[in-house]
Amino acid sequence: MSYTEELGIRAKAAESAAASASTLVKNNALAAIAKALIANKELIISENQKDLDAAAANGMSESKQDRLRLNEDRIMGMAKGIDELIAMNDPIGEVIEGFTRPNGLTILKTRTPLGVIGIIYESRPNVTVDAAALCLKAGNVVILKGGKEAINSNVCLGKIMREAIANAGLPADVVQVVEDTSRETTTELMKLNGYVDVLIPRGSANLIQAVVRNATVPVIETGAGNCHVYIDASADPEMAVNITDNAKTQRPSVCNAIESLLIHKDCADKILPMIAERFKSHNVKIYGCERTMAILDGIEKATEDEYATEFNDFIIAVKVVDDIDEAIAHIRKYSTRHSECIVTSSLANAAKFQKEVDAAAVYVNASTRFTDGGEFGYGAEIGISTQKLHARGPMGLRELTTIKYLINGNGQIR
Amino acid sequence: MSYTEELGIRAKAAESAAASASTLVKNNALAAIAKALIANKELIISENQKDLDAAAANGMSESKQDRLRLNEDRIMGMAKGIDELIAMNDPIGEVIEGFTRPNGLTILKTRTPLGVIGIIYESRPNVTVDAAALCLKAGNVVILKGGKEAINSNVCLGKIMREAIANAGLPADVVQVVEDTSRETTTELMKLNGYVDVLIPRGSANLIQAVVRNATVPVIETGAGNCHVYIDASADPEMAVNITDNAKTQRPSVCNAIESLLIHKDCADKILPMIAERFKSHNVKIYGCERTMAILDGIEKATEDEYATEFNDFIIAVKVVDDIDEAIAHIRKYSTRHSECIVTSSLANAAKFQKEVDAAAVYVNASTRFTDGGEFGYGAEIGISTQKLHARGPMGLRELTTIKYLINGNGQIR
Repeated sequence: MSYTEELGIRAKAAESAAASASTLVKNNALAAIAKALIANKELIISENQKDLDAAAANGMSESKQDRLRLNEDRIMGMAKGIDELIAMNDPIGEVIEGFTRPNGLTILKTRTPLGVIGIIYESRPNVTVDAAALCLKAGNVVILKGGKEAINSNVCLGKIMREAIANAGLPADVVQVVEDTSRETTTELMKLNGYVDVLIPRGSANLIQAVVRNATVPVIETGAGNCHVYIDASADPEMAVNITDNAKTQRPSVCNAIESLLIHKDCADKILPMIAERFKSHNVKIYGCERTMAILDGIEKATEDEYATEFNDFIIAVKVVDDIDEAIAHIRKYSTRHSECIVTSSLANAAKFQKEVDAAAVYVNASTRFTDGGEFGYGAEIGISTQKLHARGPMGLRELTTIKYLINGNGQIR
Repeated sequence: MSYTEELGIRAKAAESAAASASTLVKNNALAAIAKALIANKELIISENQKDLDAAAANGMSESKQDRLRLNEDRIMGMAKGIDELIAMNDPIGEVIEGFTRPNGLTILKTRTPLGVIGIIYESRPNVTVDAAALCLKAGNVVILKGGKEAINSNVCLGKIMREAIANAGLPADVVQVVEDTSRETTTELMKLNGYVDVLIPRGSANLIQAVVRNATVPVIETGAGNCHVYIDASADPEMAVNITDNAKTQRPSVCNAIESLLIHKDCADKILPMIAERFKSHNVKIYGCERTMAILDGIEKATEDEYATEFNDFIIAVKVVDDIDEAIAHIRKYSTRHSECIVTSSLANAAKFQKEVDAAAVYVNASTRFTDGGEFGYGAEIGISTQKLHARGPMGLRELTTIKYLINGNGQIR
C-alpha cells in the first residue's frame, strides 16, 4: 500500500466522525488548536527557523523568505483567525430550502460536508492552519500537502493541531499533513479517487494548471487573476484614478489586483497622465498600445504577451479603446474571469458591462480588490474559485459543503 | 483543426448570444422547436426508422430497440416537455442573495449560465431534445454526442432544432449534434479544455466511468444507483412491504430503484415472507445472506458481488442485520450515495439514519423512486448527480448555472 493510499484510508476512516460532530465539539477542537498554537509558539518558531535557514542556504529571495516566516505576530494571527471561525455559523445542517409535495412528502435540502478535501499549496505555512480550521468547521477531513520549503513548519503545525483535535474528542486524522513532499506523492494525491472528494490547489498558475491537467479526482481551480479596469468616457476622473491606483498598487501580488487598464479614447488624454503621475510613487512600469504611447512618455509597447500576463507586480498594460464594446471584447479575450471593473457615470454602460462581462465578480465604480471572503462579509476563505462548477468567487464555509436531501413520508410510493 | 475543435470554436462563438438572450427570446426559440418537431414528425419517424432497421439487422434486443424508437406519441411527448419548460422561471439573473456592506458596496449574488455544456449519452434519441431544451432555457450552449445507433435520429432532430433556433433569432450553434460518433471524437470531446465548461455523461456505469477517467474538462457524474431499503425492527410491516416492492419493481431499470434490502433480525421472520410473496407477481430473483436463506426457500446465496451490483432488473440482494448500525455500515460500504431509505416507527432511528447515511437523498418511510426532478417539483432534469461537487441529486435548470457577483459602488477602494 502506498503512503498516499494510507493517508486516504485514514482520512476516510475519520470522515464519519467529522461529519457527525456537533458544532460544540468542532468549536471545542478549534479552540484547542488556537490555544495549542499559542502554547507552542517557541517550538513553531524554532521549527520554522529550520525552514528559513534552509531557504537562505538555497538562495531563496527575501520576499519569499518573508512569506515563509512565522513569528509571534503571525502565530497570534492564526489563533485569532480560528477564534473568528468559532464565532461563525456552522454551515452543516443548514436548510437551504424545504417544502411539502402534494403527496405529503416533506423535502428538506440541507448542507452536509464534502468529505475528504485535499489542499495542495506552496510556501506560506499559515495556510496549513487556516485551511485545516475551515475544513474542520465544515465537518470535513483534510489532507494538507504544502511545499517542501515549509516542511518543518507544516509538520510541526500538523502535530500540534492533531493533538489538540484528539484531546477535543475527534479523530486526529481529521487533519493530516503530507510528510513526503516528493513529486510522486503529489501526483498520487491527485489520483486518489475514492478517497479524496475534492482537491483544491492554491498557489501559482503553474501549480494550479498541473493539478487540473493531472488530477482524476474533482478539482476546484482557484486564484488565477488577469483582472481589468475599464474607464468609460463618462467616468469621474478622480474616481477613475483612485480605483485604478488602488486595484493596481495596494497589493499587486494578489489575484484580485488588476493587470491591465482599458480606457475610452475620449477621456484617455485627460486621465492617463493623471494615472501615470499617481503611479510614480510605486514606480509602476507601464506597457501601452500605440495610442497610449502617444499620450504617455517613456513607456514600452504592449504586445499580446503583456495583455495576457498576470504580472503580480508593479507593472500594468494599458490599451485605449474606441468604445465599451471593444473593452468588453478585450476582456473576453484575455480575462481569467476573476474580477472585472468599469468606472462610469452611465447607467446604460454599467448595466451592459455587468451583463456582458463573464467573471466571478463584476464591479461598477469600485476596486477589484474587494473580491475577498472577508470583504464580502463571508469570513475566512479557502480561496477564490475562478472556475464555474460548484463555487465561483470567494469560497468560504458554505462552499466546503454539499447537498443532502432529507425526505420524510408516511408510506408514499409511486 | 480537428472536427471537435471546430465544434468547440462554434460553440464558444454562440456563447455570448445565448447567455445574454432574454427570457422571451429563449422561450420563443423553445416554442419554435416544439412546433417544428410536430411539423416534421413524419421526417423524424422515417429517419428514426433507418436507425431501427440498422438495429434490427445488428440483432439489437427488443427492449433496446424500444428505447431507440420515436413514434408520434413520443414526439408529442418531447414537444409537451418543451411547453412545460417554457412555463418555468428563467434561472438566469435570479438573485440568490444580496446585501450592502458597511463601506456602502452593494453585492448581489446572481445566477449566470455555465457556458458550453457537453452531453455524452446513449441510445434514447429524446435525450437530444430534452437536454438541448434545458441547456437553452438556462442560457447555455450545448454539444450533444449521442450513440451511433441513434445517429440518423439525432442528426435529424439537431437539424430541426437548429433551424427553429435560427428562425427565433439566436445562433443555430447554440445546439450542435456531433455527427462523427467515432471513439476518437468522443475522447477529444472529453479533453476540449477552453471550449467545454462541463461535461455530463448520461447512460451506463461503464460510459460514466470512462468519462470520469479520461476527461480533463470538469465532469458531473450522474445516475449510478446502488440504493437500499432498510427495514427497522419497529417498521410497520405493510408499509415496509409496499415501499420495498415499489422501490424494487415499479421500474427496476432506473437509477433510483433499489438493489438491496436490509432488514432487522427481529422483524425478518415476519416481513421477509410477505415481501417474497409480493415479489412473485414480478418473478423477482432473490439473493440472500444465510439468515435470509433460513427464512425464505429457493433463493440463492448473496456474495459480496451481489451486494455491490446495480442489477437494474427484477433481482434483489437481501441481508438480515443485527441493528441499525450494521445497516448503516453496509450502506456506507456498498452505496453509490444516490438514494437510501429507512422504514421505521422510531423517531431516534429515523434521525440517526438521516444523519449518518451519506447520500444525495435519504428517505424515511417513502420509496426511493421519488428522487426525480419532477417528483421534487423542480421540473425537467438533466440527470441525477451522484457526485458531491456543484450539484447533488436531481439536476434541473438551476444546476445548469453558475454564479456572478454584481458589485456596485461609488468609488470604494481598499
